Amino acid sequence: MITKPRGFIAAGMHAGIKRSGKPDMALIVSEVPATTAAVFTSNQYKAAPILISQGQIKSGKCRAIISNSGNANCGTGKRGLIDAQHMVLETARALKIDPKQVLVTSTGSIGKFLPMNKIIPGIRALSKKLSKAGGRMAAKAILTTDTRAKEIAVRVGGYTVAGIAKGSGMIHPNMATMHAFITTDAKLDRGLLQKLLKQAVDKSFNMITVDQCQSTNDCVFALANGKSKVKIQKSKVLGFQKALEKVCIYLAKEIARDGEGATQMIEVKVTGARNEKEARIAARAIAGNDLLKCAIYGRDYNLGRILAAVGATSAKIDPSKIKADIKFGRNLSLVSCNLGIGRSEAVAWGCDLTEGYVRINAKYHT
Amino acid sequence: MITKPRGFIAAGMHAGIKRSGKPDMALIVSEVPATTAAVFTSNQYKAAPILISQGQIKSGKCRAIISNSGNANCGTGKRGLIDAQHMVLETARALKIDPKQVLVTSTGSIGKFLPMNKIIPGIRALSKKLSKAGGRMAAKAILTTDTRAKEIAVRVGGYTVAGIAKGSGMIHPNMATMHAFITTDAKLDRGLLQKLLKQAVDKSFNMITVDQCQSTNDCVFALANGKSKVKIQKSKVLGFQKALEKVCIYLAKEIARDGEGATQMIEVKVTGARNEKEARIAARAIAGNDLLKCAIYGRDYNLGRILAAVGATSAKIDPSKIKADIKFGRNLSLVSCNLGIGRSEAVAWGCDLTEGYVRINAKYHT
Repeated sequence: MITKPRGFIAAGMHAGIKRSGKPDMALIVSEVPATTAAVFTSNQYKAAPILISQGQIKSGKCRAIISNSGNANCGTGKRGLIDAQHMVLETARALKIDPKQVLVTSTGSIGKFLPMNKIIPGIRALSKKLSKAGGRMAAKAILTTDTRAKEIAVRVGGYTVAGIAKGSGMIHPNMATMHAFITTDAKLDRGLLQKLLKQAVDKSFNMITVDQCQSTNDCVFALANGKSKVKIQKSKVLGFQKALEKVCIYLAKEIARDGEGATQMIEVKVTGARNEKEARIAARAIAGNDLLKCAIYGRDYNLGRILAAVGATSAKIDPSKIKADIKFGRNLSLVSCNLGIGRSEAVAWGCDLTEGYVRINAKYHT
Repeated sequence: MITKPRGFIAAGMHAGIKRSGKPDMALIVSEVPATTAAVFTSNQYKAAPILISQGQIKSGKCRAIISNSGNANCGTGKRGLIDAQHMVLETARALKIDPKQVLVTSTGSIGKFLPMNKIIPGIRALSKKLSKAGGRMAAKAILTTDTRAKEIAVRVGGYTVAGIAKGSGMIHPNMATMHAFITTDAKLDRGLLQKLLKQAVDKSFNMITVDQCQSTNDCVFALANGKSKVKIQKSKVLGFQKALEKVCIYLAKEIARDGEGATQMIEVKVTGARNEKEARIAARAIAGNDLLKCAIYGRDYNLGRILAAVGATSAKIDPSKIKADIKFGRNLSLVSCNLGIGRSEAVAWGCDLTEGYVRINAKYHT
């Protein structure tokens, strides 16, 4: 669906990075330079492709995203930076575009060098496979322990906003989550796109948690190529903002739902907070509380765990006024908590904590 | 061992709160009023006995601690406060002492009223069972999902410092952990005892985590009854401080080792931090990281998870200088991380994350 907006093509393939034989490289290309906005992980220990893409994004106009899964190219020092830069140059060469227009991302295990002998031929092969139909394969090729692809396209008057994402483990974004790519054929100023992307990310990817572990490779990119000829300004901003938020929230929820080992998603709504910041802190703390996540897995109506989780945060509560509830569903449980002292609210998403999460991460060997 | 210091007696028994038939009420008594220091949970959502004991401690001199397990008397509103106060009054009556000299604690499920019809007869029965030999039963009676009692006594020149504790789940203290009681027959000023207790707690209970979930009922009490006639001042302060720290660190490590579902303890040593505060933040973040806890359970030498965990904190790192290592042992794994930018260090303790933790907390029903 990432190729639904006009002027975007993509490809995905198995280049040989993953031993499983699953797709592990993706390339997304805009036919023309697109206004680009990005949000990166705030983790101080950033992966090499994040550092390279932070430099690339300065051009403000990009045409391609090259991404691999199965290896995060993180903790790889100078060689990691050279490898990420090499991916950028090879992509530019294959596409015959300016290297400044290429973004690069990696996801997978930390601490191993990229198998460049597989990645370079992979980039060349991908550049020949690019098509409208390739969007689906690209969505698959960015996954790691995810159990399914996460993609969406929203059609608004005359233009489309689409996105793909990967998540699963090490999910506790604080600025952006691990790999979400958004395309649109709307035309936007860079400043406006960046502002709207940041707002949408704060309401979506920054409000999910699987395991309170923040990744080194998180990034969200938005490319607006203007091919629809619909210029987003004045009265059109609200419609675009809504579509962008819809895409981001859908993808964020899909990541929470597909958390490692999860049997269900948990939606947490906090109301009655003193201000929005505290509502967000409280909602994230509840969604991330291991004891509550286990209780929901076991279908235990355990309100004490909600109250204890909120009480431990910096969000102000009044113990005599706070109220909580849990509504269990088949694939989705709803947790509500009214702090009882103000009018601000926030929604966060997480998932239950199961033996499956432990198994995946105990068996996972680097 | 809590009765090792002169002038302390104790008792424990099954009063009928726990359906399992295990001991669920403990009483610890000093023959004479003891200088008392305490550290309480910083959770805003505090249990009723915590609120009552915070008032009681103001007298500075206590003689008794009455404690029940199986029910935390938390989230129980006004009735909870009346019940906790009732426990204090009934204990004072049974022991024929001033009610101001009684501390009260509870641990167990949140959100249910105490079965006072079992607790009041329990207090009366306990008061008749008090003895030197009762310390062991008291150590058992404060446990919940713990698999074993946690007790220690340290003999220093002429006096003794002893302690018991309970832990297991909802362990991420921030001021004090769930129930540690310390006795000594040394003689101390209240201000000195409080200062030394706070220091020891910061190095011990405040440096452990089982699940990053902070309890509503955490408290550490220290009672010094002076029965040894050894006055702690001047040259003796250091010896007492060391003994107190030894008791607190032993109990804290016992809590980490006996974390719900844990197969091994994890000791984390952070060095090279800019200052002690950041060393502590980094050590706790590593010890509490779910992904690393799973990796250690699965014996995966996964240094990336250590680096990602530290990078996500406010502790300053230099990605090019940070170094980490894991040494696996049978019951204890050692994690080290040198942030490479300063000289401060800290040690934290945690445990691995296993299917057992999920099972205990999914099956646990309120």
